[in-house]
Amino acid sequence: MFASSLRWIYGSPPRLLMLGFAAIIAVGTLLLGLPAATVAGETTSVIDALFTATSAACVTGLVTLDTGTHWTLFGQLVILALIQVGGLGFMTMATLFAFFLKRRISLRERLILQEALNQTSMEGIVRLVRRVIVYALVIELTGAILLSVRFLLDMSPGRAIYYGIFHSVSFFNNAGFDIMGQYRSLTDYAGDPAVNIVSMLLIVLGGLGFIVLSDLIDWRRTRRLTLHSKVVLATTGFLIGFGALVIFVFEYTNSASMQPLGFGEKLLAAFMQSVAPRTAGVNSLDIASLRQATQFFLVLLMFVGASPGSTGGGIKTTTFAALIGAVIAMIRGKDDVVLFRYRLAQERVYKALTITLLSLTLILLATMLLSATEDHHFLKLLFEVTSAFSTVGMTMGLTLELTMFGKIVIIVLMFIGRIGPLTMGYALGRKPGRVLFRYAEGKIIIG
Amino acid sequence: MFASSLRWIYGSPPRLLMLGFAAIIAVGTLLLGLPAATVAGETTSVIDALFTATSAACVTGLVTLDTGTHWTLFGQLVILALIQVGGLGFMTMATLFAFFLKRRISLRERLILQEALNQTSMEGIVRLVRRVIVYALVIELTGAILLSVRFLLDMSPGRAIYYGIFHSVSFFNNAGFDIMGQYRSLTDYAGDPAVNIVSMLLIVLGGLGFIVLSDLIDWRRTRRLTLHSKVVLATTGFLIGFGALVIFVFEYTNSASMQPLGFGEKLLAAFMQSVAPRTAGVNSLDIASLRQATQFFLVLLMFVGASPGSTGGGIKTTTFAALIGAVIAMIRGKDDVVLFRYRLAQERVYKALTITLLSLTLILLATMLLSATEDHHFLKLLFEVTSAFSTVGMTMGLTLELTMFGKIVIIVLMFIGRIGPLTMGYALGRKPGRVLFRYAEGKIIIG
Ligand SMILES: [K+]
Ligand SMILES: [K+]
Repeated sequence: MFASSLRWIYGSPPRLLMLGFAAIIAVGTLLLGLPAATVAGETTSVIDALFTATSAACVTGLVTLDTGTHWTLFGQLVILALIQVGGLGFMTMATLFAFFLKRRISLRERLILQEALNQTSMEGIVRLVRRVIVYALVIELTGAILLSVRFLLDMSPGRAIYYGIFHSVSFFNNAGFDIMGQYRSLTDYAGDPAVNIVSMLLIVLGGLGFIVLSDLIDWRRTRRLTLHSKVVLATTGFLIGFGALVIFVFEYTNSASMQPLGFGEKLLAAFMQSVAPRTAGVNSLDIASLRQATQFFLVLLMFVGASPGSTGGGIKTTTFAALIGAVIAMIRGKDDVVLFRYRLAQERVYKALTITLLSLTLILLATMLLSATEDHHFLKLLFEVTSAFSTVGMTMGLTLELTMFGKIVIIVLMFIGRIGPLTMGYALGRKPGRVLFRYAEGKIIIG
Repeated sequence: MFASSLRWIYGSPPRLLMLGFAAIIAVGTLLLGLPAATVAGETTSVIDALFTATSAACVTGLVTLDTGTHWTLFGQLVILALIQVGGLGFMTMATLFAFFLKRRISLRERLILQEALNQTSMEGIVRLVRRVIVYALVIELTGAILLSVRFLLDMSPGRAIYYGIFHSVSFFNNAGFDIMGQYRSLTDYAGDPAVNIVSMLLIVLGGLGFIVLSDLIDWRRTRRLTLHSKVVLATTGFLIGFGALVIFVFEYTNSASMQPLGFGEKLLAAFMQSVAPRTAGVNSLDIASLRQATQFFLVLLMFVGASPGSTGGGIKTTTFAALIGAVIAMIRGKDDVVLFRYRLAQERVYKALTITLLSLTLILLATMLLSATEDHHFLKLLFEVTSAFSTVGMTMGLTLELTMFGKIVIIVLMFIGRIGPLTMGYALGRKPGRVLFRYAEGKIIIG
């Protein structure tokens, strides 16, 4: 009985990932529930402790309690630990899974990974994990130093160093948590080049995924990038550039957001708000005061999110690129989806379409559930749900006004969003047995 | 030059369909622009005449002018002619295309159609067209008689007969137009069993598509249905039943909609509002006063819409069924999408996914455009856009408040929605040449 349970768990890596996350969140909830974790010295309600722990472990950043003022240093360090374990741990595990998981990965996929990593053996795996962790820590440390230096202008040295470390780790892990207080995020620094540029670099590097980082570092030696890296970099670049342009145009004359800023500050704010949905969730403008068109545009950017095997969420940039390729191929009447003069396997395109559809279904279902219990405008609900599912952490202000039911829905979404709906399905679904027979092909007319 | 233009047009049936629709709309716009068409005896503005003609020819039913009071009998007959040509004409052409179009249809597809129709030769085509038209006219006539008898209780015989004919044609063609006046649609008859049941039957029969109708009529003889018909009937039944249940539950206590009605009337209203998004667009409850959750649920129902080769729009019931099958297969880790113990070809599933994605992209893009120019709540915009694209015709009241830009967006959406985004793509895209080479397969990590 016990042995068969163990086999049930270890027999499936997706299941292990899911249970691992659940365990981390449970420990986090217990620690955050301690009186020592709150400034008031009182125990936090279970639902809010669970909400915060889930948000931190799933690197989302939606909060029902202000991180900067509700929690003590101990509480904040628990949150930071959850972020580091959730973000970096997931990144490592995703890379490892992709590397040596044989059942769900094709030989071809392992070959690209081996190509990217130049590793094959058990020794290679150890080196791989070490490499992921070293990359992450070096980037986080660099970010922490730069941010600390900047914060020294505004606060005491001890505080500046702590703020530098906390926000560097939070940004690189795309966690969306900040300890600025009063849910301000980076709004006090909307026009500050240093804070914005360092933050954006941390967010983008964390969101590219380890394989691309590794590929970029090797580029000096190899002078070539894998197709995967090309697609990730091109899509990320396009989304950031196009996103900033749209936000700049939509918000230029909005007196509640950008209009009071100087031209350079406007540009900075446009880029910051364009980078944040990939999926850092910090914001330097007040999201609730943006125009409706911008808010909806942010929903679309959040839905796409970051890249595979990164600290970010969403359907992923490669999925988005495959979709665009599929639409172009369909319209042009071609059979092959082509990116950078390479053809994608049909099953890969199919997977992209399915992930998108599954994600959309979950988002729409959750939005409908919330619209039955939360008395707010539809877009505010859709924004919150997408933000939770893509583990972004931006909000139009709904998080603070959620009912108990609403909090539970958002917790579940953050969890599924982080694990990935397809991985979640694998984890819960039955193990596919050997295929004994196939049904005959039937014909229906589509569209 | 002229000859090559002609070849460009006739070389592609989708292009012919598109240009045919454009020509019908142009003629309709001219006729509706005549002073004789309006009660006031004045000429209607080009944009409103174009809007009305497009809405009628694309059997949508969104109107910027009240059909019952703005237009004279002549104007209303022009609208009715546009509906009949647009709805029945499209149904016939879609069936014909599916029947003898060789380039875009696989041998397998033609075989099912032949199986469904038992026709093969040119003589068969003539008989097929006749059969489509006879079916439609018999159903429309029966509906007109039943509705006229009911309307006799409320109005003079001449008026009752005219109302019976107009609404029977409008409902069977899923056109969404009514001449009740003051944009009332069927709200005066919310609790009337005769009007509701006849209307629902007309809407559903028109929305099943000719192949299914034909299959159903042959059923008495053959005692078997094609897979296509099974999928259409099961999905349609599910959507109507489940839709009515959700609407009933959500609106039961809403004092602005169902709460004042008796129990039987509540049921009737729930079913009417569940059937209307498939895609008749009549309504017996005021859509603007429904709860937000119900309104969003209607958006989802409208998005799915009716069945292929019918008078209705949307992504279609078979597409929806294929999507559900794909999600189930993916989660269960199976390769085959299975419906009624038949496997769907991968390319069919792929087409379903692409149509859905393309439709969603257009709806989201249009909603974002409107949210930049129309100062209304997001859901109201999303509702209108989906209604236009799926040629439904329900509205939360936005149609009457559209800016000039907004009207143009909605006109374009109705047109693309009726032609179908994929067909539209074929019509405008280049003709695929012979495939001379394929790119090598490349690998990216999805999701
Ligand atoms: K985040
Ligand atoms: K309609």
